[in-house]
Amino acid sequence: MSSARNLSVALRRARVPKPRCWVRPVITNRASVLAARSFSVSSVVGGNATREIKYTTNAYPELKRNPNFAEITERDVTYFKELLGAQSAVIDGVTTDATDDLEPFNADWMRKYRGHTKLVLKPHNKEEVSQILKYCNEKKLAVVPQGIVINTSRMNKIRSFDEASGVLVVDAGVILEVADQYLAERNHLFPLDLGAKGSCHVGGNVATNAGGLRLLRYGSLHGNVLGLEAVLADGTIVDSLSTLRKNNTGYDLKQLFIGSEGTIGIVTGVAILCPPRPKAVNVAYFGLESYDQVRQAYKEAKGHLSEILSAFELMDGRSQKLVHESTGSKYPLEGEYPFYCLVETSGSNAEHDMEKLEGFLEHIMGEGIVADGVLAQDETQFQSIWRWREGITEALSHLGGTYKYDVSIPLPELYQLVEDCRERLTKMGFVGDDDSFPVRAVVGYGHMGDSNLHLNISVRQYNKEVEKAIEPWVYEWIQKRNGSISAEHGLGLAKKEFIGYSQNDTMLKLMKQLKTLYDPNGIMNPYKYI
Amino acid sequence: MSSARNLSVALRRARVPKPRCWVRPVITNRASVLAARSFSVSSVVGGNATREIKYTTNAYPELKRNPNFAEITERDVTYFKELLGAQSAVIDGVTTDATDDLEPFNADWMRKYRGHTKLVLKPHNKEEVSQILKYCNEKKLAVVPQGIVINTSRMNKIRSFDEASGVLVVDAGVILEVADQYLAERNHLFPLDLGAKGSCHVGGNVATNAGGLRLLRYGSLHGNVLGLEAVLADGTIVDSLSTLRKNNTGYDLKQLFIGSEGTIGIVTGVAILCPPRPKAVNVAYFGLESYDQVRQAYKEAKGHLSEILSAFELMDGRSQKLVHESTGSKYPLEGEYPFYCLVETSGSNAEHDMEKLEGFLEHIMGEGIVADGVLAQDETQFQSIWRWREGITEALSHLGGTYKYDVSIPLPELYQLVEDCRERLTKMGFVGDDDSFPVRAVVGYGHMGDSNLHLNISVRQYNKEVEKAIEPWVYEWIQKRNGSISAEHGLGLAKKEFIGYSQNDTMLKLMKQLKTLYDPNGIMNPYKYI
Repeated sequence: MSSARNLSVALRRARVPKPRCWVRPVITNRASVLAARSFSVSSVVGGNATREIKYTTNAYPELKRNPNFAEITERDVTYFKELLGAQSAVIDGVTTDATDDLEPFNADWMRKYRGHTKLVLKPHNKEEVSQILKYCNEKKLAVVPQGIVINTSRMNKIRSFDEASGVLVVDAGVILEVADQYLAERNHLFPLDLGAKGSCHVGGNVATNAGGLRLLRYGSLHGNVLGLEAVLADGTIVDSLSTLRKNNTGYDLKQLFIGSEGTIGIVTGVAILCPPRPKAVNVAYFGLESYDQVRQAYKEAKGHLSEILSAFELMDGRSQKLVHESTGSKYPLEGEYPFYCLVETSGSNAEHDMEKLEGFLEHIMGEGIVADGVLAQDETQFQSIWRWREGITEALSHLGGTYKYDVSIPLPELYQLVEDCRERLTKMGFVGDDDSFPVRAVVGYGHMGDSNLHLNISVRQYNKEVEKAIEPWVYEWIQKRNGSISAEHGLGLAKKEFIGYSQNDTMLKLMKQLKTLYDPNGIMNPYKYI
Repeated sequence: MSSARNLSVALRRARVPKPRCWVRPVITNRASVLAARSFSVSSVVGGNATREIKYTTNAYPELKRNPNFAEITERDVTYFKELLGAQSAVIDGVTTDATDDLEPFNADWMRKYRGHTKLVLKPHNKEEVSQILKYCNEKKLAVVPQGIVINTSRMNKIRSFDEASGVLVVDAGVILEVADQYLAERNHLFPLDLGAKGSCHVGGNVATNAGGLRLLRYGSLHGNVLGLEAVLADGTIVDSLSTLRKNNTGYDLKQLFIGSEGTIGIVTGVAILCPPRPKAVNVAYFGLESYDQVRQAYKEAKGHLSEILSAFELMDGRSQKLVHESTGSKYPLEGEYPFYCLVETSGSNAEHDMEKLEGFLEHIMGEGIVADGVLAQDETQFQSIWRWREGITEALSHLGGTYKYDVSIPLPELYQLVEDCRERLTKMGFVGDDDSFPVRAVVGYGHMGDSNLHLNISVRQYNKEVEKAIEPWVYEWIQKRNGSISAEHGLGLAKKEFIGYSQNDTMLKLMKQLKTLYDPNGIMNPYKYI
């Protein structure tokens, strides 16, 4: 970053020649910085990757297997093998020893959950998914996380793309980055970007209603997904794969599958509206003295950058220190600040965008809202700046365990949760610099533009007392402010008992009604929230 | 329009001084051009406004009143009067003669439907809506269009607005234009605009999933509505009025109410994300020789205007001729063309926007894609140009009756439906210039950017033979192209029997399941599609 222009100096000189604007038509490589950023549940992440992961049934002894579920038999396996044909479509740990092949399907990347699955099925199309579910439903065989895993990686075709309308239709198992690369070659962009793009499936993104880095600009999947194809527990194929922007003919049922975490059906196909790929992308990075100034900077960014603003990310000083210590990289700015922001613009005219961005920078520097800043001058600097945001999760994972909370809080109090949590844990004697303290740091970062905070508590080791000090305190704190205990990560297993902090009894009752309607035997993701 | 700059001349002169760019921070008055543009069902509109409207029960003798429904009694009226208190909250045609007061609630503006309602209730808040529905459900009193009308006009408070996040929370009965005006004073914009904005309610917009003029830019209500408050048939208040952009805690149930046309619940409150109001708005109007050129122009507009493109509307030559004849206005362009387009930009920097727009114009003129065009130079011209698009419905309404179809069709064949329909009706001997022919003109216009066509067949008088020649032919034509028989208007009564052309049997079964779940006695909008 040494060649990155220091804004405070440049702006003090005033009216210096315009910086070169880096035009960057493709934005696909950035995610490789962090191939496995969490978009999952809150969790303690073990620092030692080789350490054995506990079976979830041991870690959560209160979870009891539903006695109505059947055990998989040899006969079931024979049925599935005949159904799916291809050798590669079935990993059979029932009649053979396939422990090693099954392991990746039984453990999650955060190393918190481990299942007992003995059978992985990889159907090739929706009809096979339908046959599998119909059979499982009749035989009361549970599907994920115990019992049978249905993996969609073989359903990986890009079905169609229409340049005129920007509508892409893909199988559920297409990897997000593959879809985006395909679109890049056609001057379009997938309207979702997140750290895990190199490995996550589009179907999974939809099933979990993933948010990510540019929701601020392109909106949520509820708006962008035009059609879905899904299979219900009884094998019914729901073909609602419309590619139309407007279709007001009855209830918009596909919406129910977006964010339902596989509890009412399996998504097999997705039609999504994709915007033209921006011709120019710029990124700036600032240091700020207070959270109030962060809010002011965000307000000014909305006003000055308006339609070209594509990301406004917040990182606190501690989070950046962790990245610094973990990567050894030189800080982008000279001094250290309690808050940092990353502002990205995406537009169709590089010169216009730079002019808007400079107007914004001049204003926030002139008003003293930001203390210092840099502007990426080329792609290397662009990647490097983004790494200070996207590298936080990885930096944390090197340090021991992390309690992760992904929450929505109205902007005025967004960062207050981090302060309050730090104060609480400090007063309780948990936080300190040497190894006698369980908590190393309480850090906050996230998507400022979406009121979405990632609260991370970095611990030297897993500690029940620390956990008790955080939960349910953190959920109560959020409930009081009408926030959400899960902004974009979903509930999964870890937060299922806390849903009541963000949904009232009526909503829960209505959700249970729907779960019963679509999955009367409860075979779909049986440990999930409903 | 005489002072509007003729682009073909201007561009031939090349590099003339830039036209003045008209900066227009508020876009609220335009809708008054046409206070009651249809966002409802297909219909024949009578030309004579004083003619008596037929009772729907006579016009559709096949509609039978559900014998399970109760008749309203004096006792019911007493209950509601006590419940609602205020004199103005009940229009009572049961115990008094209130025919004149009831009439506006029994007839629709298109003069096609007329009900027998003897009781109109105007609850003041969600609790009153809940009490009313609970009572109706228990007594099996049907709610709209027969039986009891529940009117939300007294629920008209703007509850809150947060400038930092842009989230507006309103009662369902707030008029769209009132909400937008309130936002204009706070530099924000309601992300929905349609001709009826001066009279329609925000709750109705949500219940019908209204699309309108700027869906292209701001997306659908499924993406912009963050929270809803609604009341189910049994009186259950569904409080899902979240103001958060991200909230992944269970099924997104509010989505079911968006576009359900009042069949599963009554929306009482809406939280919606509103973008900053654009600082600069420009509009241009072109003549084109073919539909292929319209498609090319749209493609170029997306490329050149990208993030500032806010509307791309198509009007065919016949539709503009009707406006010309109806208003007596001089055409915006010298010659006449088979196709016209209206292109609008909205952005944050007037100079940048004009530069982009000029680049676009120069390109499409240079390539011969458009034959001629004008660019509005001031607000008067801006309004005047929009009137050529928004005045079509009104022009048609002066000419007799109109068969109206609001459909989605993939772009390549969008206009083909108009050609095919015109050819079909001409061959059958229905179309002609003199009064012996029932059909005056077959015209097409609509939201090109959303693949949304409005097909209008202007008739001298209502004619069963013409109707039989159009339906179901038009629905079959759309079904073959995987289009939608209702893009943004909904199904209502008129299209309920045709839903099968856009939804398969599985989807219909699932919709019926939901209808039964939420409204087991079928009291909510009983004649509607489900």
